[in-house]
Amino acid sequence: MKVMRSIDEMQTYALRLQAQGRSVGFVPTMGALHQGHEALVRRAREENEVVVVSIFVNPIQFGPKEDFKKYPRTLARDEELLKEGKVDILFLPGAQEMYPEGFSTFIEVPSLTRTLCAPFRPGHFRGVATVVAKLFEIVRPARAYFGEKDYQQIRVIGRMIDDLKIPVRLVACPTVREKDGLAVSSRNRYLSRAEREEAVKLYQALYLGRELVERKIMQDSKKLAARLTQVLSTIPRGRVEYISVVDPITLDAMTQIRRPALLAAAIWIGKTRLIDNVIIP
Amino acid sequence: MKVMRSIDEMQTYALRLQAQGRSVGFVPTMGALHQGHEALVRRAREENEVVVVSIFVNPIQFGPKEDFKKYPRTLARDEELLKEGKVDILFLPGAQEMYPEGFSTFIEVPSLTRTLCAPFRPGHFRGVATVVAKLFEIVRPARAYFGEKDYQQIRVIGRMIDDLKIPVRLVACPTVREKDGLAVSSRNRYLSRAEREEAVKLYQALYLGRELVERKIMQDSKKLAARLTQVLSTIPRGRVEYISVVDPITLDAMTQIRRPALLAAAIWIGKTRLIDNVIIP
Repeated sequence: MKVMRSIDEMQTYALRLQAQGRSVGFVPTMGALHQGHEALVRRAREENEVVVVSIFVNPIQFGPKEDFKKYPRTLARDEELLKEGKVDILFLPGAQEMYPEGFSTFIEVPSLTRTLCAPFRPGHFRGVATVVAKLFEIVRPARAYFGEKDYQQIRVIGRMIDDLKIPVRLVACPTVREKDGLAVSSRNRYLSRAEREEAVKLYQALYLGRELVERKIMQDSKKLAARLTQVLSTIPRGRVEYISVVDPITLDAMTQIRRPALLAAAIWIGKTRLIDNVIIP
Repeated sequence: MKVMRSIDEMQTYALRLQAQGRSVGFVPTMGALHQGHEALVRRAREENEVVVVSIFVNPIQFGPKEDFKKYPRTLARDEELLKEGKVDILFLPGAQEMYPEGFSTFIEVPSLTRTLCAPFRPGHFRGVATVVAKLFEIVRPARAYFGEKDYQQIRVIGRMIDDLKIPVRLVACPTVREKDGLAVSSRNRYLSRAEREEAVKLYQALYLGRELVERKIMQDSKKLAARLTQVLSTIPRGRVEYISVVDPITLDAMTQIRRPALLAAAIWIGKTRLIDNVIIP
């Protein structure tokens, strides 16, 4: 596995691969890799000649009060894991090179950033779209791999790819879950053992919500959210940020639930923010 | 000369050229071609194996009260001119295909869109940056050619290219002028004969302004603007929108004029808006 830290080195290499007609599969990450990332890497390995993984904790997608500084950084372990996954190139750009003095270009996808996480994380998806577009220009992948846990992120990036005609295929991969159902996430590390045990209630609530809709017991999204908030209210130091039912394509909120729908939630347990979602087909 | 109207056809063709290692020179235009465009095409022809010119009157860079509908469209004549210029491909995308239902991705360059034309044309540079980024993805040029008359546009696109690491070289070409000094522009067609005669005063004012600064007669940008406004006030039905002295790189306004500086202006003559600029080296 080659490790590249320079943007120019990575882009020059990628342009050469492109000229040789060799397909690149790309997994952009913020490190602190887990089984979810491993699944993305596996899929990229199966479908491409060259696999590039980037690790970059992107400052511009964190709000001023968010966890940029304490976001877990586990580079040595990440490298081991990527070697085992037969990754060809680990791309490690520096923040100074990604955002040099005078940097001032930002990509926004307004229609998909009005619901779900967006109002609670102003600027987050602008930061995500901008960094992903830049990474695409540098790495020049044929396919890029993202996990469905970050459903809104996938929709925003997919919209950007389509709208700007970026010749990248977005591959959305199913959320990987722990045995009890908790979606794996780098931020799960923040949880104490007691919090970790409670965290499964997020998945249980979404699972219950899907059942209630599928069995036509509930069709009103406000009532559903109230019911699931009840379930989550049993978590000590827990707080619901949102529980929303939205159109899976437009992400527009639904009052009366029509299917397919996306049921998504963000909760806080102590100082840790967790998100998850299920599709109600 | 091939004429391509489909985005997919153009992009597929461009990707093939790229895989063959053939360099594309790209001249994005809104049509109504003139000697300024001819100079861009000539330069592109000299420096690249394949020359692509696009004609697309980009709706999202016009404000609701601007001249999108009446913007001159002279396709038959444009085609002739491009054939004479030995252009290989004329790309004519449709607005419906460029901005399909649900389109919602926009690129902004805030630091360069606070002065000059930007406050008078809200959304203009967002429309320009977005369409140019999309055209780059489709046409995949090695070099792209723009005229210095649209100085702020060049700076915005240059910043976007650098910030997003788009592998395109921006080639800025000198403003082409009529014999009397008027910068050639598609919008000059709007001028009556009498207005056309008066329009040269825009260039004369800028030329005078440069002299006043170079000879150190004036160093204060407000006083300079007042002096030049005087010159322009002799134009019947004329109105100065702005006369500004800015840093040529950051486009920040200068109170005391330091060199190099950019002296730029926008004026209205009747219903026609004209812009021009000179560098004070």
